[in-house]
Amino acid sequence: MSGSLVIAGLGPGAEHLVTPEVQAALDLATDVVGYIPYVARIPTRAGLTLHASDNRVEIDRSRHALEMAANGARVVVVSSGDPGVFAMAAAVFEAVEAGPALWRDLDIRVAPGITAMLAAAAAVGAPLGHDFCAINLSDNLKPWAVIEKRLRLAAEADFAMAFYNPRSKSRPEGFVKTLDILNDACGDSRPVIFARAVSTPEQHIRVVPLPQARPEMADMRTMVIVGSSTTRLIERDGAPIVYTPRSLGA
Amino acid sequence: MSGSLVIAGLGPGAEHLVTPEVQAALDLATDVVGYIPYVARIPTRAGLTLHASDNRVEIDRSRHALEMAANGARVVVVSSGDPGVFAMAAAVFEAVEAGPALWRDLDIRVAPGITAMLAAAAAVGAPLGHDFCAINLSDNLKPWAVIEKRLRLAAEADFAMAFYNPRSKSRPEGFVKTLDILNDACGDSRPVIFARAVSTPEQHIRVVPLPQARPEMADMRTMVIVGSSTTRLIERDGAPIVYTPRSLGA
Repeated sequence: MSGSLVIAGLGPGAEHLVTPEVQAALDLATDVVGYIPYVARIPTRAGLTLHASDNRVEIDRSRHALEMAANGARVVVVSSGDPGVFAMAAAVFEAVEAGPALWRDLDIRVAPGITAMLAAAAAVGAPLGHDFCAINLSDNLKPWAVIEKRLRLAAEADFAMAFYNPRSKSRPEGFVKTLDILNDACGDSRPVIFARAVSTPEQHIRVVPLPQARPEMADMRTMVIVGSSTTRLIERDGAPIVYTPRSLGA
Repeated sequence: MSGSLVIAGLGPGAEHLVTPEVQAALDLATDVVGYIPYVARIPTRAGLTLHASDNRVEIDRSRHALEMAANGARVVVVSSGDPGVFAMAAAVFEAVEAGPALWRDLDIRVAPGITAMLAAAAAVGAPLGHDFCAINLSDNLKPWAVIEKRLRLAAEADFAMAFYNPRSKSRPEGFVKTLDILNDACGDSRPVIFARAVSTPEQHIRVVPLPQARPEMADMRTMVIVGSSTTRLIERDGAPIVYTPRSLGA
């Protein structure tokens, strides 16, 4: 038996943002593995088994997927957004590296998806149109000191910044500190975009100047993008367009 | 007449990486506008006019697209990858801001796509699985001193780095300097990924330790990704897997 493992990105939520590559992998799958709300997006059908698991069990989930693939199943591990950006691909490869040698020779493939920062950027204009960075604000897996250092260096580099996992109920203080650091390090009133549940019916987007950004504007379903010093607003009827020009215009 | 303008990302090359949203916009378009090789990807059909233009005329192309939309056309501006990442979205919004007031009230929408760094990352594993930055190495639109400053700060922040437009025939020296700076600033032998023409039949990928990276390994069709200090290689038969773990593992 020759199994396979595809680590697939479902995009931010809308079905029209799922690539044909990912859809084809799902159509051929015998088993779909992932976090409960992402597996819930997959329609049931004959011949397909859904394996939904809770958050924070990424390595167990990866091992389970690899075991099934090693036994001949056509497994798809689903992530929201892109699997390579703060999602399941790194977890699966951690499990591969720590696991039995035969897992290295499995047919494993990553199918990219539209990651949240690109969908959020598209929804407001083009705030990531010039150099930028992406930072996971969760301190589950790294010390806060590393996050603070990266925020200050990113501000000094004048990157636009995209923040994943800005705020959870269990550690709301991290995003409070993030905004304090940015107000201190940026020294101007660049725009901050709070983009919640982008591309879904619950999409809600707010754009405020940095000094007016408040921690409670974000939750774990919110993507936060902070413009660089050159990011501009085009005012018009309705929501403004936010974009970062290609040139520094200095 | 009510025209519209969709700024659409075609992804890195493969048709199975074009989102259904982008395909639907193309199916409804009366006019498609873009750089010659990207417009060449769009099949001709009755009722559709293709407007291909050369590189470095992004503002003229944007104005033309906006004028047609203002006159009632259903226009799609096509970019490779994602239009919001070093591509046409920022150029269109620059033209909107500088143009007649009525352009601000046009029906303008950005349809995201799979940007090159995500496709390149997926092709080798998950090198962007932790914090990272994206830098356009072209100095057409910004001074070299800014690029150098950002490279040094990104190295200090220990971001993985994705480089767009690493090298052109007209300015080959920039990427030579980039590698010198990285060898100086990183002080270790993290992996460098050269991913050319990802997802196309010409795809070619090479992974080398930073001290062995050479300028001629990149051209303008190459995406370059430099791992962080924690990026790992999983050796196996065939090409190694390159990934950055979720945790710092310190």
